Amino acid sequence: MATIVIKIGGGEGIDPRLAAPEIAGLVRAGERVVLVHGGSHETNRLAWALGQPSRTIVSPGGQQSRRTDRRTLEIFMMAYCGLVNKTLVEALRGAGVDAVGLSGLDAGIWIGSRKGAIRSVEAGQTVIIRDDLSGKVESVDTSLLGVLLDAGRVPVLTPPAVTPEGVAINVDADRAAAATAAALGADELLLLSNVRGLLRDPADPGSLFEEVGPETMDEARGAAKGRMKNKVLAAEEALAGGVGRVVIGEAGGEGAIARARGGAGTVFRPQAVLA
Amino acid sequence: MATIVIKIGGGEGIDPRLAAPEIAGLVRAGERVVLVHGGSHETNRLAWALGQPSRTIVSPGGQQSRRTDRRTLEIFMMAYCGLVNKTLVEALRGAGVDAVGLSGLDAGIWIGSRKGAIRSVEAGQTVIIRDDLSGKVESVDTSLLGVLLDAGRVPVLTPPAVTPEGVAINVDADRAAAATAAALGADELLLLSNVRGLLRDPADPGSLFEEVGPETMDEARGAAKGRMKNKVLAAEEALAGGVGRVVIGEAGGEGAIARARGGAGTVFRPQAVLA
Repeated sequence: MATIVIKIGGGEGIDPRLAAPEIAGLVRAGERVVLVHGGSHETNRLAWALGQPSRTIVSPGGQQSRRTDRRTLEIFMMAYCGLVNKTLVEALRGAGVDAVGLSGLDAGIWIGSRKGAIRSVEAGQTVIIRDDLSGKVESVDTSLLGVLLDAGRVPVLTPPAVTPEGVAINVDADRAAAATAAALGADELLLLSNVRGLLRDPADPGSLFEEVGPETMDEARGAAKGRMKNKVLAAEEALAGGVGRVVIGEAGGEGAIARARGGAGTVFRPQAVLA
Repeated sequence: MATIVIKIGGGEGIDPRLAAPEIAGLVRAGERVVLVHGGSHETNRLAWALGQPSRTIVSPGGQQSRRTDRRTLEIFMMAYCGLVNKTLVEALRGAGVDAVGLSGLDAGIWIGSRKGAIRSVEAGQTVIIRDDLSGKVESVDTSLLGVLLDAGRVPVLTPPAVTPEGVAINVDADRAAAATAAALGADELLLLSNVRGLLRDPADPGSLFEEVGPETMDEARGAAKGRMKNKVLAAEEALAGGVGRVVIGEAGGEGAIARARGGAGTVFRPQAVLA
């Protein structure tokens, strides 16, 4: 009986509901499955429709994140916790899965710290943002997740997380999934999105890293650009936390989970971080 | 150790977050609390902002409900399950309450039946609507609620419900709260909104029914108009299901829950339905 954490991205063109029949099969086979999802595309669409288009913060190191003021956080909750989470739970129930949709706020599952001052590069100038409601997951409370998994239920988890003081914060869902997999002692973490895996050259789909081990970890870190930086960081954090195996692969279509478990995409071996 | 189900309405001018400190006090005192909330005003605001204003169905009998096509249901999920549920959970956590936000879909808590053909009176003509995604709660699965209450957590529940086939449906939150209170064998059900209670004459705030018993139940049923019809029906259903006491009272402001428990508003006694 393996514990598998599956993160399905929220980018354009990904419909996490397509995974429902495959997840039903895993649960029937006795696996313990936790699903984590994003919602960035639906958030962007909603923000745009409401006349508040999304803004991206670019750190001096090139890392991208969503500018999250209070109104953005509310729109984020509507898209992630309302639309995406509940339509996914609905699809899972339709496939016979006893799904339970939760955010990181609920039962304090994802306790995080809020970023202090953020450096953002805007038109060549570095500015400091102090009121941003984003941060990172520092600890995972698995008590409710354990109860749900023991009952054969599938937790469907999504940001935001919450600070110890009870403030909702936007966190990266890949790294939150990694922290969850580590806290649960998961056998596998699958990070599925609209890319094949980690590429040596983002412009060349043939340049896939098929496996990342001790000898290629540095190269993999260097090759990751944009959103892929967080995925590689998530893979490292999960492995360092004791997760058996991490795969960065493609979401969508029948059999996507089986293909990723079978090694399609980029497979990170534990030795990559133990070297 | 009493079990109390508190429904806080989603009408204009009600902020359910104001109840957080009082709920924290109840939990500290050892009470088992389930919170149910609406979200109609936020849904109307969001629907309007998205260029899809809400439409109301009026039955030949005068009962009002929200016209719920698929797009409306998605907007409903964003407002109820996203914005209202998660900001309420956030406020509760800020007040020290271990809140868990759930919809009726999650863990199949509210299993309901979808309405077949609905008769709607439009411009004096009765038309039949067949694709509406609304219905009513037929059964409540209390297994997850029991686990949460035993752990000192506060479930924060909101529509939609779900059919046995896994289709999300809009249901009346007052009656869903009543079904939940009955299934839990609750001692009390409080239905709090922006009205003082049930009035004999809706135009006269002094015409409050202070108590409804066997001798006044028929009169109470007749006096209820518009949204109040569902609240009186909910009170009847809760009492028939074994709930000890139902109060229809006012939400908002410090001490609103204590006032309702103290009898401010309209108190329904069990004898009202046992006569």
